[in-house]
Amino acid sequence: MRYAPTASPVLTLTTGPVDAYPAVLRGLATTVLYDYDPAFQATYQRVSEKLAGVVKAQTMPVILHGEPVLGLEAAAASLLGAGDVVLNLVSGVYSKGLEDWAKRSGAEIVELAVPYDRILDPADVARALEARPDVTVVSLCHHDTPSGTVNPVEAIGAVVRAHGALFLVDAVSSFGGMKVDAESSAIDLLVTGPNKCLGCPPGLSILGVSERAWAKMEANPTAPRGSILSILDWKEAWRADRPFPFTPSVAEVNGLEAAIDLYLAEGPENVWARHALTAKATRAGVTAMGLQLWAAEESFAAPTCTAVRTPAGIDEAALRAEARARYGVVFSSGRGETLGKLTRIGHMGPTAQPIHAVPALAALGGALSALGCRVDVGAGVAAALAAIDAG
Amino acid sequence: MRYAPTASPVLTLTTGPVDAYPAVLRGLATTVLYDYDPAFQATYQRVSEKLAGVVKAQTMPVILHGEPVLGLEAAAASLLGAGDVVLNLVSGVYSKGLEDWAKRSGAEIVELAVPYDRILDPADVARALEARPDVTVVSLCHHDTPSGTVNPVEAIGAVVRAHGALFLVDAVSSFGGMKVDAESSAIDLLVTGPNKCLGCPPGLSILGVSERAWAKMEANPTAPRGSILSILDWKEAWRADRPFPFTPSVAEVNGLEAAIDLYLAEGPENVWARHALTAKATRAGVTAMGLQLWAAEESFAAPTCTAVRTPAGIDEAALRAEARARYGVVFSSGRGETLGKLTRIGHMGPTAQPIHAVPALAALGGALSALGCRVDVGAGVAAALAAIDAG
Amino acid sequence: MRYAPTASPVLTLTTGPVDAYPAVLRGLATTVLYDYDPAFQATYQRVSEKLAGVVKAQTMPVILHGEPVLGLEAAAASLLGAGDVVLNLVSGVYSKGLEDWAKRSGAEIVELAVPYDRILDPADVARALEARPDVTVVSLCHHDTPSGTVNPVEAIGAVVRAHGALFLVDAVSSFGGMKVDAESSAIDLLVTGPNKCLGCPPGLSILGVSERAWAKMEANPTAPRGSILSILDWKEAWRADRPFPFTPSVAEVNGLEAAIDLYLAEGPENVWARHALTAKATRAGVTAMGLQLWAAEESFAAPTCTAVRTPAGIDEAALRAEARARYGVVFSSGRGETLGKLTRIGHMGPTAQPIHAVPALAALGGALSALGCRVDVGAGVAAALAAIDAG
Amino acid sequence: MRYAPTASPVLTLTTGPVDAYPAVLRGLATTVLYDYDPAFQATYQRVSEKLAGVVKAQTMPVILHGEPVLGLEAAAASLLGAGDVVLNLVSGVYSKGLEDWAKRSGAEIVELAVPYDRILDPADVARALEARPDVTVVSLCHHDTPSGTVNPVEAIGAVVRAHGALFLVDAVSSFGGMKVDAESSAIDLLVTGPNKCLGCPPGLSILGVSERAWAKMEANPTAPRGSILSILDWKEAWRADRPFPFTPSVAEVNGLEAAIDLYLAEGPENVWARHALTAKATRAGVTAMGLQLWAAEESFAAPTCTAVRTPAGIDEAALRAEARARYGVVFSSGRGETLGKLTRIGHMGPTAQPIHAVPALAALGGALSALGCRVDVGAGVAAALAAIDAG
Repeated sequence: MRYAPTASPVLTLTTGPVDAYPAVLRGLATTVLYDYDPAFQATYQRVSEKLAGVVKAQTMPVILHGEPVLGLEAAAASLLGAGDVVLNLVSGVYSKGLEDWAKRSGAEIVELAVPYDRILDPADVARALEARPDVTVVSLCHHDTPSGTVNPVEAIGAVVRAHGALFLVDAVSSFGGMKVDAESSAIDLLVTGPNKCLGCPPGLSILGVSERAWAKMEANPTAPRGSILSILDWKEAWRADRPFPFTPSVAEVNGLEAAIDLYLAEGPENVWARHALTAKATRAGVTAMGLQLWAAEESFAAPTCTAVRTPAGIDEAALRAEARARYGVVFSSGRGETLGKLTRIGHMGPTAQPIHAVPALAALGGALSALGCRVDVGAGVAAALAAIDAG
Repeated sequence: MRYAPTASPVLTLTTGPVDAYPAVLRGLATTVLYDYDPAFQATYQRVSEKLAGVVKAQTMPVILHGEPVLGLEAAAASLLGAGDVVLNLVSGVYSKGLEDWAKRSGAEIVELAVPYDRILDPADVARALEARPDVTVVSLCHHDTPSGTVNPVEAIGAVVRAHGALFLVDAVSSFGGMKVDAESSAIDLLVTGPNKCLGCPPGLSILGVSERAWAKMEANPTAPRGSILSILDWKEAWRADRPFPFTPSVAEVNGLEAAIDLYLAEGPENVWARHALTAKATRAGVTAMGLQLWAAEESFAAPTCTAVRTPAGIDEAALRAEARARYGVVFSSGRGETLGKLTRIGHMGPTAQPIHAVPALAALGGALSALGCRVDVGAGVAAALAAIDAG
Repeated sequence: MRYAPTASPVLTLTTGPVDAYPAVLRGLATTVLYDYDPAFQATYQRVSEKLAGVVKAQTMPVILHGEPVLGLEAAAASLLGAGDVVLNLVSGVYSKGLEDWAKRSGAEIVELAVPYDRILDPADVARALEARPDVTVVSLCHHDTPSGTVNPVEAIGAVVRAHGALFLVDAVSSFGGMKVDAESSAIDLLVTGPNKCLGCPPGLSILGVSERAWAKMEANPTAPRGSILSILDWKEAWRADRPFPFTPSVAEVNGLEAAIDLYLAEGPENVWARHALTAKATRAGVTAMGLQLWAAEESFAAPTCTAVRTPAGIDEAALRAEARARYGVVFSSGRGETLGKLTRIGHMGPTAQPIHAVPALAALGGALSALGCRVDVGAGVAAALAAIDAG
Repeated sequence: MRYAPTASPVLTLTTGPVDAYPAVLRGLATTVLYDYDPAFQATYQRVSEKLAGVVKAQTMPVILHGEPVLGLEAAAASLLGAGDVVLNLVSGVYSKGLEDWAKRSGAEIVELAVPYDRILDPADVARALEARPDVTVVSLCHHDTPSGTVNPVEAIGAVVRAHGALFLVDAVSSFGGMKVDAESSAIDLLVTGPNKCLGCPPGLSILGVSERAWAKMEANPTAPRGSILSILDWKEAWRADRPFPFTPSVAEVNGLEAAIDLYLAEGPENVWARHALTAKATRAGVTAMGLQLWAAEESFAAPTCTAVRTPAGIDEAALRAEARARYGVVFSSGRGETLGKLTRIGHMGPTAQPIHAVPALAALGGALSALGCRVDVGAGVAAALAAIDAG
């Protein structure tokens, strides 16, 4: 028995999109109201206010109506200009990628990079800032998804704040799955989305903006206005009595409300613990099976994604194809430089359930065995179970 | 009894968003697959192929992942450059608005304008092109929604084609509700979306591109690449074996498939007839009530929207507020120059049902009467019914 | 343009099923839990408790897992036995039909009947009970749906209570659309369902039971046990710590919870006012069009259904077919003795919106006109609108 | 981390209800049509016709509007009468339970029983029929769910047919998950429902009826008529031009159509293979962990349910509570005589996915370990994986 490529899989354990929470799917199916209808305007304000309690920025969060690459491109275009010096902290493919958007603004880029299986050291960041006191913005990818590694955003934020630069953070695939907010990490422009750990489909960006970031964007002559890339246009759009710059994605907003309601009802700390335990159990199993984590140290590994180094001689694409065909389990590959070198098991939103570590390990191990790389799935599962039980 | 502003209305008869078809709402609630899962990639190709039969462009349609203002901004940015001369045909607020995006590209703008209650004459377009043989692109808004008027896109397309310019058409609020496609109107870049007459929520753009338009975009050094605004990046994305430039809006794509399936099952001609008859009945009623259409001639009026001139002495916002509070019926206002001067009754997708003309007229007439403008609702409804019966 | 019989209609203005509230449809689509899962058992208790506040019986309401004919058959079988004398109050087809179920129990039936366009007079009920002091149970159909007439349940309840008999009431198509509960009307066994005015699909019965009714059922040797017809089996099933006699209809229970939440959020009085005003506007229009209500006096007419007498020479089935084919509007026929003699316009749950009176009247009038019976639709709609405006 | 009893579990691996297929959930959320609307009547006929191809009885299947206990009670009441001699084949709690319903009809009951961990031998059935040539009806529970054992229905059917008795079969929890139909097993009255292996919520019964069975029911003076228990009333209800005896459960019928469409699209043989492989992998794991199947021989074990004998000293309720609290995995207990003696892992519809054997075994093993019964989960999972790979 094999699952056809066109048949739905059983378990989508990717780094997103994952399936949405059932309540979010139902939220998407809510009656679509006219965007200028006062009932929808009230909804939009209510959703924004709930979101504010989660993003914890100094000002009301901004929802942009495209998946988080829109948020990231808009952030770079809005915040950065010709006079800026950006210290881009690079620990993986996505943080490296921020450079492209930053360059377009005419800013000078200074890079501080580590190998893609390692994370940034706040002390190194401090040193880089000392070396270049003219840095105006520091950019970081909190969880560099193609590596499954998490940078110490809070400690780095403190360094950046001390220096006086603005702190731009891509928290797309960490937000909602672990602690990260604008306040605790001194983030001036936090970019995320509901389509990873909040368990929504892709289609929206969420931005948390500090007062300094608003001031800089407003003073920036090249910040987009009258454009899908404009953050400024949406500054007041959360208010029920203000017009939208263009039609918001009504269904996605309804889905987002369902997601935030779930998140708050479960309790953020409980949600994070669920993600963390799923990842911990997965890592325990991976190691016990004789495989290697991608992260150079386990403490670097994300609670929302476990990246497993591809064993020598294994075709990583074949590995994922085998897991899907045999067991109906879908994993993510690496991206760019990590493509082929690792397989990623996502723990995001509805898939961040510790017991899912078990079929994940079984499917990974079974697929490897099928390709001739014998691993001890039994030992892996037993270790995962022990980790869950240790809770 | 009055409907509270925050309570859901009974009938949303706006120019969009309107409520989605029930089958589209269920489509949105479909299991969210990983975008790189072969089952989703097959879905994306299948949806694109179905769409191709509706858009009828020379090449596969492009889906962009934001509501049609993204499509319009991307079209202007991708197609136009510093060397272009754009003849912008202006008959309303939205066609005038195209100018802003066109200007950003560095193109020279030539305008041919008519009052906003009239439409373009193909002969005038021909004359304008004779006067400026260097025009490289002609831009038109097919249904200028804030006026509820429809331009003769097919005849204008023939003129443009004869001249040799490229033809850029905003067909956002006509597509799916009346005949308009790239082939029959010689459109090189048709921009639309599923959130009007196809009965989806806002969140996607649909583009029909000719081979000439692809060639021009590919040769355009300022056409966006590596951006949410890029059309070029998505050229091959419809193919199941090609990667997406970024994560598509999975749920919206699922909703779109449901919408196209409905559209094809009912039959495009039948769908258009349903829109046309609803508008005809509405116009008959409006006139019989003693009110005036906005369109200078009834033949200009759109099958997807009926714009009614605000009677002297009436506050148009109060009129809509009254219709909502008393009857739960929501209309659209004008925009920009037409704001306050007209009220729009949408006939789009699920709301394009002839019988809906009746509550629309009753709510409009009742609200006017409440504001002191006595109109004969009975005569209006009788006329609408006669129009439906003559159907 | 005509709507095909197999195509979905635009407006289902029947006496049920009507379309469910959108939130109920989403409720039905909730994850199906195992009935013995503590989360579902908690749901069941919670729904029962919410329902108790609406049914207002002395004891917890009973949910039976089949549409209300199950509730009615079970009620007759459980409450009645060979020694009973049942005074069946007959004002229509449904109240007459109760006799069949009552007879099966071996009870003696005494009938007090009025013509089917009239309602019971409490004084006549009192006289009937004086004439037969041995009556043990009085049965009434509150809103006899095939006639669209409403009996004065509260006044009759007082008479029954004074006599000492038990009071069995079919409140299927009144409950949720007007005031009726076990407490205010001294009902011992109230049978209803969520599929009329609560806006759920058919599939459940709801019973409100007094302590006397439980005592009588428990003492009744022929009351069903170990059967789908058993009420006794379900007495404690609402408790999260008690087993279900058999598997409840999980999805319907989820839908019911959504319906009760809506009902309580809107406020029962507001819901009733909405039903009443819709009916009042419809009646005003019917009369103004020159048609006759079925009810001999307007005060008999239900707030949840308007029955319109078929004009002489009109084929009632053809009338409804014409309304559906021309306008997509669906009405109900009469049943049994009223079949062919009247057409019913339902005002139930989501269709109980005053503005719906307008398309109802237009479709009714238009269909009559098409069949050669000229009516003044304009006058009808104007009268309806005036009634709505008078609020 | 523990899952609260009132929080939704992660995996419902019970013997039903299980969660419905996502497409079925969306089907339930379809617009509710009036039951007498021609569009719904056409739907009902279409669903019945699709079902006919699956049930494979001589006549059109009957849908009853309550979960399968309604179908079973109705079958006994309709088919059996005072003159009947019923040979009830007993291999478990559910087959034994059929006796109660059969007795009510006044029939004489002859029992052929085996221990509840064994199955019926067709040769014994033949002998029993020889001993009692006056047997008019033989009743069998195909898959006696509380034991997880499957009787050889086809071979027994041949014996019954040869004898000339009618064959009444409860196929509730086997139908749709393995081969069983009226034709291949010579069943005269097959009772099942969509809420087990077809992946619907509970709420409907499905009956396959032979011409002989219709003749017997029609001749039976005690067969229910004018009752929720009547099968006869619904004989022609599948026809679009015939009235329904009472209002069908519209939403459940819509859900059923989605389920049959899925079943036919996947292919019945493929669906059965998926169930069989899930069960096989689960059994392999159970045995490898050192646990015992309930079934005396593995060949008796159902493809739709794996019953695991409770190890000595273990409180079975505590075991399930532990699996739920630690891992979010829900199992079923035994029932009646098997309660406490076994735990059941369901493989039904959407849960019949081989990979689900892995979390099932892990949760079972982990819970046992937590209660002091050390089992080798690793060995179990490895064995399950080997079984899946052997396919």
